[in-house]
Amino acid sequence: MTHRTTGVCYYPEHWPEDHWTDDARRMVAAGLTWVRIGEFAWGRIEPREGRFDFAWLDRAIAVLGEAGLKVILGTPTATPPLWVVNKHPDMLAVDAMGRPRKFGSRRHYCFSHQGYRDECYRIASLLGERYGKHPHIHAWQIDNEYGCHDTTLSYSSAAREGFRDWCAQRYQSADALNRAWGNVFWSMEYDSIDDIDLPNLTVTEPNPAHVMAFRRFSSDQVVNFNKLQADVLRRHTDKPLIHNYMGRITDFDHFAVGADLDIASWDSYPIGFLSDRLEATPAHKARFLRQGDPDMQAFHHDLYRSVGKGRWWVMEQQPGPVNWAPYNPAPLPGMARLWAHEAFAHGAEAVCYFRWRQAPFAQEQQHAGLLRPDSADAPALAEAAQVAQELAQFPETGTTQAQVALLFDYPSAWVWSIQPQGADFDYFRLTFAAYKALRRAGLSVDIVNATADIAPYKLILAPGIATLPQSLLDQLATFPGTALIGPRSNAKTRELSIPVPLPPNLPGLDATVTLVESLPPDITVPLSGGGAFAHWFEQLDTSAAGETTTTSQPAIASQGKLHYLAGWPDDTAFDRLIAQACAAEGLDTLTLPDGLRCRDTDTHRFWFNYAPEPITFNGTTHPAAGVTWQPR
Amino acid sequence: MTHRTTGVCYYPEHWPEDHWTDDARRMVAAGLTWVRIGEFAWGRIEPREGRFDFAWLDRAIAVLGEAGLKVILGTPTATPPLWVVNKHPDMLAVDAMGRPRKFGSRRHYCFSHQGYRDECYRIASLLGERYGKHPHIHAWQIDNEYGCHDTTLSYSSAAREGFRDWCAQRYQSADALNRAWGNVFWSMEYDSIDDIDLPNLTVTEPNPAHVMAFRRFSSDQVVNFNKLQADVLRRHTDKPLIHNYMGRITDFDHFAVGADLDIASWDSYPIGFLSDRLEATPAHKARFLRQGDPDMQAFHHDLYRSVGKGRWWVMEQQPGPVNWAPYNPAPLPGMARLWAHEAFAHGAEAVCYFRWRQAPFAQEQQHAGLLRPDSADAPALAEAAQVAQELAQFPETGTTQAQVALLFDYPSAWVWSIQPQGADFDYFRLTFAAYKALRRAGLSVDIVNATADIAPYKLILAPGIATLPQSLLDQLATFPGTALIGPRSNAKTRELSIPVPLPPNLPGLDATVTLVESLPPDITVPLSGGGAFAHWFEQLDTSAAGETTTTSQPAIASQGKLHYLAGWPDDTAFDRLIAQACAAEGLDTLTLPDGLRCRDTDTHRFWFNYAPEPITFNGTTHPAAGVTWQPR
Amino acid sequence: MTHRTTGVCYYPEHWPEDHWTDDARRMVAAGLTWVRIGEFAWGRIEPREGRFDFAWLDRAIAVLGEAGLKVILGTPTATPPLWVVNKHPDMLAVDAMGRPRKFGSRRHYCFSHQGYRDECYRIASLLGERYGKHPHIHAWQIDNEYGCHDTTLSYSSAAREGFRDWCAQRYQSADALNRAWGNVFWSMEYDSIDDIDLPNLTVTEPNPAHVMAFRRFSSDQVVNFNKLQADVLRRHTDKPLIHNYMGRITDFDHFAVGADLDIASWDSYPIGFLSDRLEATPAHKARFLRQGDPDMQAFHHDLYRSVGKGRWWVMEQQPGPVNWAPYNPAPLPGMARLWAHEAFAHGAEAVCYFRWRQAPFAQEQQHAGLLRPDSADAPALAEAAQVAQELAQFPETGTTQAQVALLFDYPSAWVWSIQPQGADFDYFRLTFAAYKALRRAGLSVDIVNATADIAPYKLILAPGIATLPQSLLDQLATFPGTALIGPRSNAKTRELSIPVPLPPNLPGLDATVTLVESLPPDITVPLSGGGAFAHWFEQLDTSAAGETTTTSQPAIASQGKLHYLAGWPDDTAFDRLIAQACAAEGLDTLTLPDGLRCRDTDTHRFWFNYAPEPITFNGTTHPAAGVTWQPR
Repeated sequence: MTHRTTGVCYYPEHWPEDHWTDDARRMVAAGLTWVRIGEFAWGRIEPREGRFDFAWLDRAIAVLGEAGLKVILGTPTATPPLWVVNKHPDMLAVDAMGRPRKFGSRRHYCFSHQGYRDECYRIASLLGERYGKHPHIHAWQIDNEYGCHDTTLSYSSAAREGFRDWCAQRYQSADALNRAWGNVFWSMEYDSIDDIDLPNLTVTEPNPAHVMAFRRFSSDQVVNFNKLQADVLRRHTDKPLIHNYMGRITDFDHFAVGADLDIASWDSYPIGFLSDRLEATPAHKARFLRQGDPDMQAFHHDLYRSVGKGRWWVMEQQPGPVNWAPYNPAPLPGMARLWAHEAFAHGAEAVCYFRWRQAPFAQEQQHAGLLRPDSADAPALAEAAQVAQELAQFPETGTTQAQVALLFDYPSAWVWSIQPQGADFDYFRLTFAAYKALRRAGLSVDIVNATADIAPYKLILAPGIATLPQSLLDQLATFPGTALIGPRSNAKTRELSIPVPLPPNLPGLDATVTLVESLPPDITVPLSGGGAFAHWFEQLDTSAAGETTTTSQPAIASQGKLHYLAGWPDDTAFDRLIAQACAAEGLDTLTLPDGLRCRDTDTHRFWFNYAPEPITFNGTTHPAAGVTWQPR
Repeated sequence: MTHRTTGVCYYPEHWPEDHWTDDARRMVAAGLTWVRIGEFAWGRIEPREGRFDFAWLDRAIAVLGEAGLKVILGTPTATPPLWVVNKHPDMLAVDAMGRPRKFGSRRHYCFSHQGYRDECYRIASLLGERYGKHPHIHAWQIDNEYGCHDTTLSYSSAAREGFRDWCAQRYQSADALNRAWGNVFWSMEYDSIDDIDLPNLTVTEPNPAHVMAFRRFSSDQVVNFNKLQADVLRRHTDKPLIHNYMGRITDFDHFAVGADLDIASWDSYPIGFLSDRLEATPAHKARFLRQGDPDMQAFHHDLYRSVGKGRWWVMEQQPGPVNWAPYNPAPLPGMARLWAHEAFAHGAEAVCYFRWRQAPFAQEQQHAGLLRPDSADAPALAEAAQVAQELAQFPETGTTQAQVALLFDYPSAWVWSIQPQGADFDYFRLTFAAYKALRRAGLSVDIVNATADIAPYKLILAPGIATLPQSLLDQLATFPGTALIGPRSNAKTRELSIPVPLPPNLPGLDATVTLVESLPPDITVPLSGGGAFAHWFEQLDTSAAGETTTTSQPAIASQGKLHYLAGWPDDTAFDRLIAQACAAEGLDTLTLPDGLRCRDTDTHRFWFNYAPEPITFNGTTHPAAGVTWQPR
Repeated sequence: MTHRTTGVCYYPEHWPEDHWTDDARRMVAAGLTWVRIGEFAWGRIEPREGRFDFAWLDRAIAVLGEAGLKVILGTPTATPPLWVVNKHPDMLAVDAMGRPRKFGSRRHYCFSHQGYRDECYRIASLLGERYGKHPHIHAWQIDNEYGCHDTTLSYSSAAREGFRDWCAQRYQSADALNRAWGNVFWSMEYDSIDDIDLPNLTVTEPNPAHVMAFRRFSSDQVVNFNKLQADVLRRHTDKPLIHNYMGRITDFDHFAVGADLDIASWDSYPIGFLSDRLEATPAHKARFLRQGDPDMQAFHHDLYRSVGKGRWWVMEQQPGPVNWAPYNPAPLPGMARLWAHEAFAHGAEAVCYFRWRQAPFAQEQQHAGLLRPDSADAPALAEAAQVAQELAQFPETGTTQAQVALLFDYPSAWVWSIQPQGADFDYFRLTFAAYKALRRAGLSVDIVNATADIAPYKLILAPGIATLPQSLLDQLATFPGTALIGPRSNAKTRELSIPVPLPPNLPGLDATVTLVESLPPDITVPLSGGGAFAHWFEQLDTSAAGETTTTSQPAIASQGKLHYLAGWPDDTAFDRLIAQACAAEGLDTLTLPDGLRCRDTDTHRFWFNYAPEPITFNGTTHPAAGVTWQPR
């Protein structure tokens, strides 16, 4: 059972000190428990090197804490002040075109720069010493939104040196590296690991194995950067450590970062994501313009529950229009409440709104808050207060054990971005398509790492995992449930080459992918059972053909309940295949109308209607943009 | 009353000297009065540093002047020869990606480079000394098309130094600057103004206040650059000083440049602009392919009448196909005549065609002239001669006092390009949409600066002015006419932050914008009275709601005849609102068919039919691509 | 009569040596004659400077040769190893944005770098010495796919120095160069040829004459680079020298490179080209998705027959899906056979498949071969074997003398890419449109250089040749056949200016282009006889008007059988004009259905059905994706 609370992000340094007390009072009045502060305040904490001003922060914490709020303190390492940059001019990340990016916004650092790492260690250490046992500090956030603004990859000198060290550790010798990458192709062999450069600005595409090594290295650098701060904070505090991940960012392995933290959190901007980072038809985008995609938030909730090993939050919840998407409409009334309840239904411990008061200045001046810039209530404040009241009715719930798991693997996102083979092949898109189909069937889902224990589940889906871990292969050999593997699964070695014997190499399944086709959007491969493969089709040599295409080519190879899908199912096919699999496992499914979704907890079934109109389903009418729940 | 004449741009240095006399004779035969020369001829005037060759220019002026033509002499500072660049290698502008742009075309200089400014001062001074009192020189052009080819902004070292000086003058201290920009956000505060860099190549968007300061600085540099030459020329001549602005360029403040000059002129390329810089449906672009948009020229005419404080010209009039638009069709027969008369009807003193003879070489070899490259008449020559004859019938007309003004504010173009908030929000587009609606109603319009005296008008429109000047607010408090303000008006402080109290802060109007929405193209907000808001909608808290949306949200807040529009009206809504406003003011309006436009002078009403077919309106048939006039 | 054989590309260095013997055996079993090796193997031949390892190559040649295969040995200069780059760091090409491109893929060299040329001379010399008279080496390939990956143009220091030398040779003085380019325009004149820079990164477009000179220079550098190796190889061998050109690459003059070689070859990827480099409707691309465009291969076959002075090969034939196009579907069964026979029908001496076994590693791991990565047969192997068997039935055929020639001129591709004047004007596209129309009429065509002897032909087409060679003008004056010249023919001087007298200046034809129009895709100029001009229309002043537009403007000027087309005919117009011309010359034409094509040899007529369904034409049914032939 999870205790459920709400909170808000606050920037005392943005406001005259005489506002703080009243701000804190109003937060408490709105039922908020948590207040996150400090994560961009380095310039006010240490305005010049070694010259500190903690007094204002002490006072801010005191005001907030004495009002009854629990403070989450952020390490401010996403926004080093100018003096840090002037001290370490080569700490700036360099983009793929070779241009160092400048001071003047945020995330202006290269994860590989040792000098900057030292500065981060130092400031985190000082904050830990001072506030680690402070009675009002109840949690810590490390840095802010790793990878946001395309900042995972850097082509700086520091990154090049770091990459060479990483290669030396991984491969031990240039010969081994050459063999692993297949550098004999095009005379790309190295005499020495110290000759290896970063894989940008080549004449045509670099060796995909080279890029994949760089992607693994870059992810590892994020993990190490985070661990450095986590380790130093733990020496001073026993409060939970958190990072706030950003939606649809896959450039580093969140599971690996999460392993060093206590709680995963993510920043949920449903309307921004719909406009900015969702493949969908114009009609879908119009229908859900002011609500967000009905599955996008749930996907991340289920993912971060896993990244957080069961403990997760929404650290930033969109309260109104944002400033950063191509178009920025306002949420329909009710959505700020719906989104919060949806997070809780998926097991969130806390939902914090971003942000308390809309700052009228600087980059995010058009980003709404719970208060308007003139301190009047913004529409979301009342909804936040309502959520807090509703939570008070039943403050605890539980995350039900899902029967279905979708496997998610960050390195696969890198593999397929390096080698999409078709212009619109994208790992997140494929995985999300599977997830949406599961949700249309009314299923509650776990999203788990490819190395996870699958024993708790009756049905697992594993589309697009480039290299199936041996642990998964071992489990599949004896898995009593249904497994839908593919397309493009186990299609690559860990060094991004094609395995021989050819894929998919699933235990007990006689099936070989003899060639693959990427297909333009207007071409599909229809299936005999209905629906089609789109984007991607694999020709199979198999004695285990289950379903075929309408031209009698194998479409699915099946051995018992292990199925290999030789293509990317369209919605119709995904719905059918999931219904069949659930039927085989005795799992109940629904056929939910467009926009209506449900989620089970231990005690309740929650209904979320993302549609702009009421929906009647099985005799019950669900209000537009509304959430309801009923005991199970 | 304005005396109306025609002219042509001529490049004697392009042609053998033995062509000049006959060229001049034919110009006179075509009724031309003016001939502009010299603006790209630095390389022939001063082929090496300090080595001058004025003799050819003396002879050219003599030939032209003795034929009866009045010469406009251009300062050649848009095309410094290579020796200037080699002497000042860092005078080249640097683009936003940090790349210095090279010699080999034109406008290859940074406005901030002191060394290049000195060279310009020197060459302008020498030309002034030599030709300032020359009997054949009747006007001067300074430089050529400031801002063309995206040359207002430069990220060079010279610009950085200049920007720091500018910031030091404006803000006096880093503390004041930090407060003005809100640099506390994301720890962007500066210890010293000398630490401030230009706002390019940041990791994510820079502080909009930082960019806005850079945009103001960049505009000021153009103003100063122009003033330097104007000042030196005035020491030697009392002839009018002119600059030729280019269409739809808003990167610097034309009113401010114009304040130092005697006459504004602009370069009118109706067909190029339709293809290259107009948002319109494909059907509209097809219909007006060979005529240009029916309002684009008039908009600039009305704008530059104001920039020129009443005195304005067309310095370059398109005579045939150009070379620089995505597609370059030829004008319909009659259009060269129509365009010229339209300029005169809007008060132009002169219309000069670009150019006399099409040069068969170099960048503009595919750009038509009045003569073909083989010296035969091109089609526009006869139309130019006809215009000259027609002007001789009534050589003078007058600009009627418009009853309607549209306010135009260059800094607002910068604000909304820095912070569009919606992908397709553009200040020119918004303002031009308002203008087109006024023109469809048959109104003669003044386009005036936001600081203008509005007393002469019965109706003013002020869409999208980011910061209403105090002078306008003061006038609005007592304005007896109708004012349509909004959307997005008075929405920002001069430092690009959100004002508190919240916008629009109009005198006597109880209305507050509580949040704003940018909308994708397929989503609109219908209005109860017909039409809709598109692109942009603001939620108003007001006790003065006039019209509402079809869902009963306030759409317009009204106090007497002061109206705040909380959205971007589509064409239907704009037409209706303007008709209502005119009715309230007793202004007659028309409902003009697509392509037919009219314009009043003191003595005549002119009709321009941009359509490719004759149009019958109120019993009169207007010939295709034709112009007619009738006494008022 | 041509002896016809097949072959394959092979990379012994990619595979364990114990595979070689069996690979060779299976090649022979598939009827293959040729095996190309070595062209990317520099790193294995000379792993460090001066340290050679020829032993493995000796053994590979021995195994292949002893199995009965004829070896084509490639010079490995497209893939210099890292030590070469480290020795000559400035040998890397620099892109138009000024960025040196890095080691890590292929073609990482600037053609102008003298140090790298010396290295190429050295390695080619060493290979020539060692293998020039080797009994198993039967042909040589120099380098690989010049110009692929946009590598013809480089903006490096070496290129700048080379360009100055080239200009000095061509123009002899800065004055002459200034006059030739028209540098007086915009004060672009040079004092010294040593001041001239490369025409990139200018503020707006550079002088087109400057760019054209740079394009000619860049092409010449490819020719010289190739000749250097050809000359050194000829000192050691009398075997034919070959280069493998890549499809639709026009950045250098293939005729000029071909003049120094014995055989032209090209790399034919029908399905990749359809997806990646063909302007066509979505319906066309969908219909021919797995077959390729029905004319794209034939066009290149006919072109390279001419480049090779009659001797030509397909050096790389697509066998299955490739890795580099936006979408990469698999060929329909039968297409690998069809494509090979089509090449032979057009006169190819050999067709080599790329490649023997799909390498599971590095950049092309998703590029199919005749074997799968696991050494099993890929689908194309059986088709290749079938082709070999069929060739054995009649091993020789002959190239019939075509009655129709299409003139192709590489410099024109440069001229129109420098100065398209309309956004979609492209020389290849125009020429290919003419070719497709000829093919729809069932004609066998020669594609010849603009300087070719046209006497053998009854009909010639010359669209878009910027400057007609004097030799062609001379021939046209007395040509007894029909000539369709235009549009945009003879429209420029060799220095990319407009000729005076104005174009087209055809012998005996009174016609002058008075102005030109580029037209957006939705606007056409209908012709009185049917069809229309699209993209491009020229206004003619002519006393020789043949056909007119529907508005009675001249569309074609004709003097006897010399016709100047004043526009770009759409398909309907091209079909009609070609049918009329053939009727005038007594040439039989067909009206072939969509996808069906034919080609005559001395002995047979071949039929190729590119359609995915059988087509019945004139009573004969042609199988889908099939080839048939019949004696003539």
